[in-house]
Amino acid sequence: MSSTTELDLAQYTEQLAQQARAASRKLVSANGNQKNAWLRRMTELIRERTPDLLAANERDIEQAPEYGLSEASIDRLRLTEARLEGIVTALEEIMALPNPVGEVIDSNMRPNGLLVTRVRVPLGVVFFIYESRPNVTIDAAALCVKSGNAVILRGGKEAFHSNMAFYQLLQEGLRDVGLPEQAVQLVETTDREAVGHFLKLNKYIDVTIPRGGKGLIERVARDATMPVIKHFDGICHVYLDKTADPELSKRITVNSKCQRPGVCNAAECLLVHADVAETLLPEVAKALLDAGVELRCCPRSLELVGSGVPATEEDYGTEYGAKILSVKVVEDMDAAIEHIHQYGSGHTESIITTELAAAEKFTTEVDSAAVIVNASTRFNDGGEFGLGAEIGISTDKFHARGPCGLNELTSYKYVAHGAGQIRE
Amino acid sequence: MSSTTELDLAQYTEQLAQQARAASRKLVSANGNQKNAWLRRMTELIRERTPDLLAANERDIEQAPEYGLSEASIDRLRLTEARLEGIVTALEEIMALPNPVGEVIDSNMRPNGLLVTRVRVPLGVVFFIYESRPNVTIDAAALCVKSGNAVILRGGKEAFHSNMAFYQLLQEGLRDVGLPEQAVQLVETTDREAVGHFLKLNKYIDVTIPRGGKGLIERVARDATMPVIKHFDGICHVYLDKTADPELSKRITVNSKCQRPGVCNAAECLLVHADVAETLLPEVAKALLDAGVELRCCPRSLELVGSGVPATEEDYGTEYGAKILSVKVVEDMDAAIEHIHQYGSGHTESIITTELAAAEKFTTEVDSAAVIVNASTRFNDGGEFGLGAEIGISTDKFHARGPCGLNELTSYKYVAHGAGQIRE
Repeated sequence: MSSTTELDLAQYTEQLAQQARAASRKLVSANGNQKNAWLRRMTELIRERTPDLLAANERDIEQAPEYGLSEASIDRLRLTEARLEGIVTALEEIMALPNPVGEVIDSNMRPNGLLVTRVRVPLGVVFFIYESRPNVTIDAAALCVKSGNAVILRGGKEAFHSNMAFYQLLQEGLRDVGLPEQAVQLVETTDREAVGHFLKLNKYIDVTIPRGGKGLIERVARDATMPVIKHFDGICHVYLDKTADPELSKRITVNSKCQRPGVCNAAECLLVHADVAETLLPEVAKALLDAGVELRCCPRSLELVGSGVPATEEDYGTEYGAKILSVKVVEDMDAAIEHIHQYGSGHTESIITTELAAAEKFTTEVDSAAVIVNASTRFNDGGEFGLGAEIGISTDKFHARGPCGLNELTSYKYVAHGAGQIRE
Repeated sequence: MSSTTELDLAQYTEQLAQQARAASRKLVSANGNQKNAWLRRMTELIRERTPDLLAANERDIEQAPEYGLSEASIDRLRLTEARLEGIVTALEEIMALPNPVGEVIDSNMRPNGLLVTRVRVPLGVVFFIYESRPNVTIDAAALCVKSGNAVILRGGKEAFHSNMAFYQLLQEGLRDVGLPEQAVQLVETTDREAVGHFLKLNKYIDVTIPRGGKGLIERVARDATMPVIKHFDGICHVYLDKTADPELSKRITVNSKCQRPGVCNAAECLLVHADVAETLLPEVAKALLDAGVELRCCPRSLELVGSGVPATEEDYGTEYGAKILSVKVVEDMDAAIEHIHQYGSGHTESIITTELAAAEKFTTEVDSAAVIVNASTRFNDGGEFGLGAEIGISTDKFHARGPCGLNELTSYKYVAHGAGQIRE
């Protein structure tokens, strides 16, 4: 039986991938109006079918305790009319973004008259793996199709009924506007083995995007035979340089840690230049403590703060996801950068400084997706950076770095127009 | 003994990779003048040390028969004064290219006053694996360092002495101009196991670029734990559409196949629209036969050409690397595109047509790195496309597609400048 199931799963996954490839071949010619017509139709369908969507979600909520979900996780899983309206707004925002496909990125008229252009094209087929929140099903489908890609969605089992309900609408919408129905496919089995099969299908799948826990991303990165856009930890730093303004230091450090402690662009570590630690750190620490932050301090900062617990080696490099912050006094900016490269995850780092040369050195030498001067780490976000919606924040340096919006779901091809040119 | 050697090799490769990472951290701040000073110094050193370089090369040439190298391979391995002058010219061309590092690719002034810029940065550390031609040692080092990357060079054993001689000059040049010496390192063992060790070091190495036979590239793609820029087969097509001009058809098909049959952007297959096969194919075939090309024909083209041998299924999808061309009559353009997607390698395809809509359809629907209208496939090349020197031609869609020059060896980071902005 087991080997039959394996075979079925291999056939099923390959069929989905083949269908996605075929749909992607058609989708490449769809213009922006057609794709927006589908997005508009989705907003109508979500409003029309709200009762069905809520009923499907209710089944997931009822089953949630069986999966051992926490209250917080159950809350993330829950759909309400207000949350569905939020999904509609997200779709409208994606509609408002320009169609990236076909853009001439740059061009070069060669001396022999050959006009060489670089044209933006879809990546092709995206395999997207995600966890519980069901709104991601709509977001991901919308971003992939708007950028001309076919997508295979693999949601979490906790959201299975909600995802299936959304999936039926997505397909109905594609049929209604005459786009290939298999541009969006949802994996209709919760068998964990299915992912392993898809990761082998580099013949049909151009990129895999895992969004979820570290274990999932590591497994995908290890087993995938196609490129992966990874979204690893956010171990973000705020560095108070020797000329840091005290007010900015307080405001930005507190905001970076506290505005939403559970997200990847929240700060996990505060670094302070030794020259100003004595004057600056006590007041910044007080602001943090007042905001309810637990501080884990190096020996020098423990002295200066007077409260807090000693940091262990493990604290540096930990993504707390909570109101906890490690604190370290560093000799100078070089030591701060060294610390960031050793313990950070290349996600987001902020410097607070009034000195031009310091800002220049920090932004040049720190090797992270986003390096921010005198503002909160929380700004590393597709919406805040002006990209519109994002499918994730890449901690890779290859292909896409930082927030991944529509352009990051594209590649390019060279298109050259001649009039009989040959090479001599 | 064997396990001791393994350990030594593990230590040696990790040391090189660590040193490369450290050098890359310094190199990120080197400006264009410093990098060009090194390139200029290299041109001087190559001219000054010509006798030493030729003597080292002579040792490789003497050993070549032991490695079973063909006459053609030995010729590619050989350095002469003229070839060294060619290397000097290549260095001068790379000097003339703009410094890509630090370029502000685009920017976005946000409503809250946060200035978000996207800044071009080096990838970091490149592991470059290549085969016999020793000039590649200089080319690759020059391109990597000019784009701000540290590089670990792994050349073929056949060119070991030549590579070592170049390597000494590369390091001498780096010392002379005050750039980090370990920005360029050559693997000084020919042990095949060394490559496997490097491929595990994704902690230090940002990208691996293999240039060589298909077996090498497949092995690297399979074993690498970091991204790989692959340069697979060039199975390129010329498609004669139903409105193709006969003169252009002859000239471009012959040039695409014959101008340099051994290279990746040479054509391997000719597709002809059925409506014009009877009038067009005989004269194009005659021109090819006159140029000494062997034709492997589908049944219909065999009838029309009157000479040539029947093509097998295997002919389609073969990179001949010689004056051999497969020929197929196709029903229409859709069948041509279908054939290209089934048998091609996504490298380069040319269409010959006078019809605007046909050119548009072909360039939109064909999913290859370069799609060319009314010109030779041989133009898919960094120099011909205006990128300057190239480190390879990518058949991937991820990160870099087509010719890879300086920009393709870079990534970007977001640099944001604020004045105290926090998220509300």
